[in-house]
Amino acid sequence: MIERDEVFRIRTARKPGTLARVLAAIGDHDAHVGEIETIYMAPDHNIREITVIAPSDEAVEHIHAALRDLDGVDVVAEHIDRVFARHEGGKLSITPRFEVRTLQDMREVYTPGVARVSQAIEQDPQLADTYTWRGRTVAVVSNGTRVLGLGNIGPAASLPVMEGKALFYAMFVDLNAVPIVLDATDPDDVIETVVRLAPGFGGIHLEDIATPGAYRVEEELDRRLSIPVMHDDQHGTATVLLAAVLSAARLQGRELADLTFGQVGLGAAGSAIASLATQFDFGEVRAYDPSPQTVERLHSLVHGGTQLRAGSEQADFHGTFADADVLVLTTGRARLLDAAQVRPGQMVFALTNPVPEIDVDAAREAGAAVAADGSLVNNVLAYPGLFRGALDGGAHAISVPMKRAAAWTLAELAPEGELLPDPLVRNVHLEVAARVAAAARQA
Amino acid sequence: MIERDEVFRIRTARKPGTLARVLAAIGDHDAHVGEIETIYMAPDHNIREITVIAPSDEAVEHIHAALRDLDGVDVVAEHIDRVFARHEGGKLSITPRFEVRTLQDMREVYTPGVARVSQAIEQDPQLADTYTWRGRTVAVVSNGTRVLGLGNIGPAASLPVMEGKALFYAMFVDLNAVPIVLDATDPDDVIETVVRLAPGFGGIHLEDIATPGAYRVEEELDRRLSIPVMHDDQHGTATVLLAAVLSAARLQGRELADLTFGQVGLGAAGSAIASLATQFDFGEVRAYDPSPQTVERLHSLVHGGTQLRAGSEQADFHGTFADADVLVLTTGRARLLDAAQVRPGQMVFALTNPVPEIDVDAAREAGAAVAADGSLVNNVLAYPGLFRGALDGGAHAISVPMKRAAAWTLAELAPEGELLPDPLVRNVHLEVAARVAAAARQA
Repeated sequence: MIERDEVFRIRTARKPGTLARVLAAIGDHDAHVGEIETIYMAPDHNIREITVIAPSDEAVEHIHAALRDLDGVDVVAEHIDRVFARHEGGKLSITPRFEVRTLQDMREVYTPGVARVSQAIEQDPQLADTYTWRGRTVAVVSNGTRVLGLGNIGPAASLPVMEGKALFYAMFVDLNAVPIVLDATDPDDVIETVVRLAPGFGGIHLEDIATPGAYRVEEELDRRLSIPVMHDDQHGTATVLLAAVLSAARLQGRELADLTFGQVGLGAAGSAIASLATQFDFGEVRAYDPSPQTVERLHSLVHGGTQLRAGSEQADFHGTFADADVLVLTTGRARLLDAAQVRPGQMVFALTNPVPEIDVDAAREAGAAVAADGSLVNNVLAYPGLFRGALDGGAHAISVPMKRAAAWTLAELAPEGELLPDPLVRNVHLEVAARVAAAARQA
Repeated sequence: MIERDEVFRIRTARKPGTLARVLAAIGDHDAHVGEIETIYMAPDHNIREITVIAPSDEAVEHIHAALRDLDGVDVVAEHIDRVFARHEGGKLSITPRFEVRTLQDMREVYTPGVARVSQAIEQDPQLADTYTWRGRTVAVVSNGTRVLGLGNIGPAASLPVMEGKALFYAMFVDLNAVPIVLDATDPDDVIETVVRLAPGFGGIHLEDIATPGAYRVEEELDRRLSIPVMHDDQHGTATVLLAAVLSAARLQGRELADLTFGQVGLGAAGSAIASLATQFDFGEVRAYDPSPQTVERLHSLVHGGTQLRAGSEQADFHGTFADADVLVLTTGRARLLDAAQVRPGQMVFALTNPVPEIDVDAAREAGAAVAADGSLVNNVLAYPGLFRGALDGGAHAISVPMKRAAAWTLAELAPEGELLPDPLVRNVHLEVAARVAAAARQA
């Protein structure tokens, strides 16, 4: 089940209180109100477009019926599908960086001029970073095997998601990002394909590739290529989550060294979170996953840093819950957690989508000092700055210090009382990029 | 040896005749004059930047020395390298097609909205042409094994050339073109890689891939993919050359049916030219190549159309020369042809670069009715319109009727007395696209 944003165009009598009744009817169906746009104001009526964030397709129908029944309210047009309209023709375009007006211009950007640039790069391949778009261009690569909450929908269907990721690179950090969707489910095929197309790119952003294959894809590409490679579902998520935890600790006035960090569920995101957590100054990191192999893999990822106690036994499960001051849940199991299991003062991040391990309000009522669900963790906060910083800093990989720098920067830029900054603020990304680049240069 | 464009910044006394002396000195070294830009005009002197199109690097040095020696002339700055300056940061950028300002915008172009678009494409993969950039996006793919006159320079060094090709797609026909340079010399690896990345593209433009591998790459991709695939070195060149021949025949007032078309040299361009020529109404097509396999391949390419007589014997060589009213040479052999071998009234296209089979002036003096060399055939005239037309027409391949339509359109659009139109005129490309799309729809 995925949230559904629906736009209703509504004509209301111009009487005080009418819009309030419309919004109340929406709220009665467990739906949120998004944008309210005023289209037209007449002496006796208004026309508005109201975006409704409904929990399901059914709820949309119920809201529609309820609005029709209201006094002084007409539904002028239902189901205005802004989403599909927006996507027509795609979200990106490739444009020239300068005008080519004359024959001489053409001789400079193409033959015969370009031959000298090619020869220079043949002599010194690194010059491609300067004299082509490569130094500012990232491939956003997926095979569509695990897209959003949709599962294995294949390459073509994953393309709009990759275009979305690419769009944010352009908007926030002025990088070119090329969506590349692969008809290849075997990790070896993905690896070979990316190795072959890598000479034209400055970085490889892996996205929505199913685990466990995705682990090997990332490890192998990182090993074989000299450009930064990052699987966003792992490390983008981990970076943003850690930033939120740093903010939460600060809001609670707690020192990291006094906190036990607990991670339950060691999938793509969970293992990256637990692993990255050991690189901060927590007192201890505890982790649990029912699969011994998964726990073993986590141990192999962690080198140095905070002490890690991870296991797959019931005792590890209970111990992690009981000891954790920061409790991060990525179990894939809706409503796993009972309010009674929340320890007062605990900071709870229940990240399973769309229904979390525990409802945020229930966790707060049970005494959680901080409670958040998956809607908190927007990956777009991390990856643009991480890759821009990596390219600016000349990094050959996205290192732990770079991820740490990104997390600290995001925590610092969170507005008073918030865990994370607004992803639509461009300066957030540029600041992350600057700090990541500095970390890359120090390495 | 490749032509070298060099910009000299020159200060001349403001005396009548000074600029003429500068240009004469350049001409004395067998160099052409490109742009002349006036930077500054003072009462007593002018500063200009003069682009010199020199036949070699040495000539540039000699011109520099000659200009320094001229009275009233100073070389203020030599070797201003506009080419490298132009290439800094690359020639393309990827930009958003619309503004994303609000959280609601983000919810429409990314999660949760994008999930519905992905689901729709999962149900009907063709929708990706409408709701992603795919329907307007071409991959320009090379492995850098035969780039311009430079040979096998590898993928990174070929990137500026592919960016140049991509630039013209954006400028002339509003398509997105993504340069993809592959670290793969084995044709099978190229094929597998392109098949895997194809789901994100509406067309595959193959460029600068060495033969004979390139033949199989194109044939296999054409067979395995349902989107248009074209090796530009073959079919782009053939289309433009045929357009020039159509113009030449018209200028000479000759009917195609009265002409014998002769093709000497059956490499990538030559075989495509001979093959396409059989699809026009020439009286006969003759072809020669010293390799029997190459001749055999040509026979396998030609189905129906004008009678083809092709062979690898000396008799075929002499016969092709003697019979051809239109003689096209793609032999790779500089100065192959003697003026005495030119038949008066022949239309001679000596396409080997940088030194043709016969000098254009020598051919004309020997009585050729038309003489042109490789500088005539600018591929940029054909491929943008061919691919835009293919995508607009919903074509699954670049067919013979589409190439014929492109050639006829280019011939018609050539200005009075010229063989081909100016590639910088955008309408030329849009007209080619429209006619190609019409041909695609009729198929």
